[in-house]
Amino acid sequence: MRQAGRSLPGYREVRKRASLFEICRSPQLAAEVTLEPVELLGVDAAILFSDIVLPLAAIGVGVEIVPGVGPVIDSPIRDARDLERLRPFEPAQDAPYLADAVRLLVSQLDVPLIGFAGGPFTLASYLIEGGPSKTHARTRALMYGEPLLWRRLLDRLADIALASLRAQALAGASALQLFESWAGVLDPGSYRTFVLPAARRIFDGLADLGVPRVHFGVGTGELLESMAVAGADVVGVDWRVPMDAARARLGRGVAVQGNLDPAACLAPWDVVRERVLAVLAQAGPTGHVFNLGHGVLPETNPDTLRRIVELVHGHRGGERAEPPVRS
Amino acid sequence: MRQAGRSLPGYREVRKRASLFEICRSPQLAAEVTLEPVELLGVDAAILFSDIVLPLAAIGVGVEIVPGVGPVIDSPIRDARDLERLRPFEPAQDAPYLADAVRLLVSQLDVPLIGFAGGPFTLASYLIEGGPSKTHARTRALMYGEPLLWRRLLDRLADIALASLRAQALAGASALQLFESWAGVLDPGSYRTFVLPAARRIFDGLADLGVPRVHFGVGTGELLESMAVAGADVVGVDWRVPMDAARARLGRGVAVQGNLDPAACLAPWDVVRERVLAVLAQAGPTGHVFNLGHGVLPETNPDTLRRIVELVHGHRGGERAEPPVRS
Repeated sequence: MRQAGRSLPGYREVRKRASLFEICRSPQLAAEVTLEPVELLGVDAAILFSDIVLPLAAIGVGVEIVPGVGPVIDSPIRDARDLERLRPFEPAQDAPYLADAVRLLVSQLDVPLIGFAGGPFTLASYLIEGGPSKTHARTRALMYGEPLLWRRLLDRLADIALASLRAQALAGASALQLFESWAGVLDPGSYRTFVLPAARRIFDGLADLGVPRVHFGVGTGELLESMAVAGADVVGVDWRVPMDAARARLGRGVAVQGNLDPAACLAPWDVVRERVLAVLAQAGPTGHVFNLGHGVLPETNPDTLRRIVELVHGHRGGERAEPPVRS
Repeated sequence: MRQAGRSLPGYREVRKRASLFEICRSPQLAAEVTLEPVELLGVDAAILFSDIVLPLAAIGVGVEIVPGVGPVIDSPIRDARDLERLRPFEPAQDAPYLADAVRLLVSQLDVPLIGFAGGPFTLASYLIEGGPSKTHARTRALMYGEPLLWRRLLDRLADIALASLRAQALAGASALQLFESWAGVLDPGSYRTFVLPAARRIFDGLADLGVPRVHFGVGTGELLESMAVAGADVVGVDWRVPMDAARARLGRGVAVQGNLDPAACLAPWDVVRERVLAVLAQAGPTGHVFNLGHGVLPETNPDTLRRIVELVHGHRGGERAEPPVRS
């Protein structure tokens, strides 16, 4: 339940005195807001508080997180010359606070810590559009129209994500998630041609670490077959795709994560309960990381999240205690 | 290629002296901007220039089109009392300019005119969110949490759409399209429970008119099977779903419309050409209305659109002239 922290009171207090990047760059503050949802909600893992554009800022790309908007890029990428601004990311020199935050958290947590990075398509879309976009049209236009520039851009971004993820794992993160948030704007053929090679480069580059690798994007129903071959151990599924359909598309050997509709958390508890149980039933008893199908909405009542965790634990506990009897 | 007009010089000239609603309410201006793409691009049909929220404004809902934002609702719908504001739409009294514009256009056009209305989910989302939304979370929360209120809301909106579409057909429109633009934020189970009955109500209510009925939404890959049973003769497919996959999900007896990625139109011509031909090949030679997979992007060069129309005509002409030889 990433971003759960953003709906919690402690986080909102910290944000009064520190910007998002300031929190990310302070191991103490990052640890504080990472721990809050674990303690308050009782979830089975923590996810490092950070931002997918942080490595870009760390190598000198002019980027700011504008409240209510998202990441805004000073000078968007337009041609091959602009690629030079994307030098390799060396976490130990460029962002030592990243591994420091991971180490601090691992020393304090009783549950696994998940590290993460932004996927190359998603980072490319911010760099090309100059910020969040409703259509991502400029991104796809560059991708279609300048495939060689696109390939070089995605390779650089894949290497940046890979360096960040490796650094987090080597500092003690127990699992790694790639947020390829906006890849769902692509048709499957374009995904395979223009994004899959970069995704494989990342997941192959993590294989020796022996930590579970999670791959997630929004609206990726058409892409699941292709994402399955990118090499992740777990694929996050958004709420649009029923879990049984997702499993069928992903094939054997890939676990699923998800996929309660975050908007369902705003409904009365009996509705939430019914929908949680439906997700559990559709996903089946094994190879499933229960989660929302996208980030927690800021207006979510933390108590609802706590009850969801309790419900899932009770259900899974029941399944563990006695073998399920299924018709 | 709906909204093609919005990228054309004549439309931009008209917009300097009239607001969007003013154009919609003036049969002369609406006809002028409807004709422009037909004359300039050579497309095979015209689509009436109007807006999906126009019938809401016509029955007294406070709604404004804010440039760069979209429709903004004065007082969003929150409870059952708010439903009273949605009285039945009587086109002849509430919006006589609608049928007038259709009649004027039919007398001037050599090609069929397509009428349209907004789908009930899409209109509900504007009414509930108060305007365009990135997440449509409040809409889904009300849908999940207050299913009876939701059902009454969608029935009213379905009747409004139905009245608008019937009026356009009776005035001479040769085809009718329902823009259920945002239904793609739903999982298929929720679509079937919460939206499909209203969609059927509309398409069943048009059946006696004998005009082709088109149903379109963005990101509806998961919903195509369900949309197929809503009763439309043609289903519009966005660019994410390959046309052959869309056909397989829709089954026999439903034609497809689409689905060139609008962003592809920003690429160099040889790339556009290749992607147009790929759409034609995937869709097959019959039961296909070639179109973009979503609205024309404002930055599109009209000359590219003209060349696309020419390419499709040449290709289709070739197919008609000699039976295709396929391996």
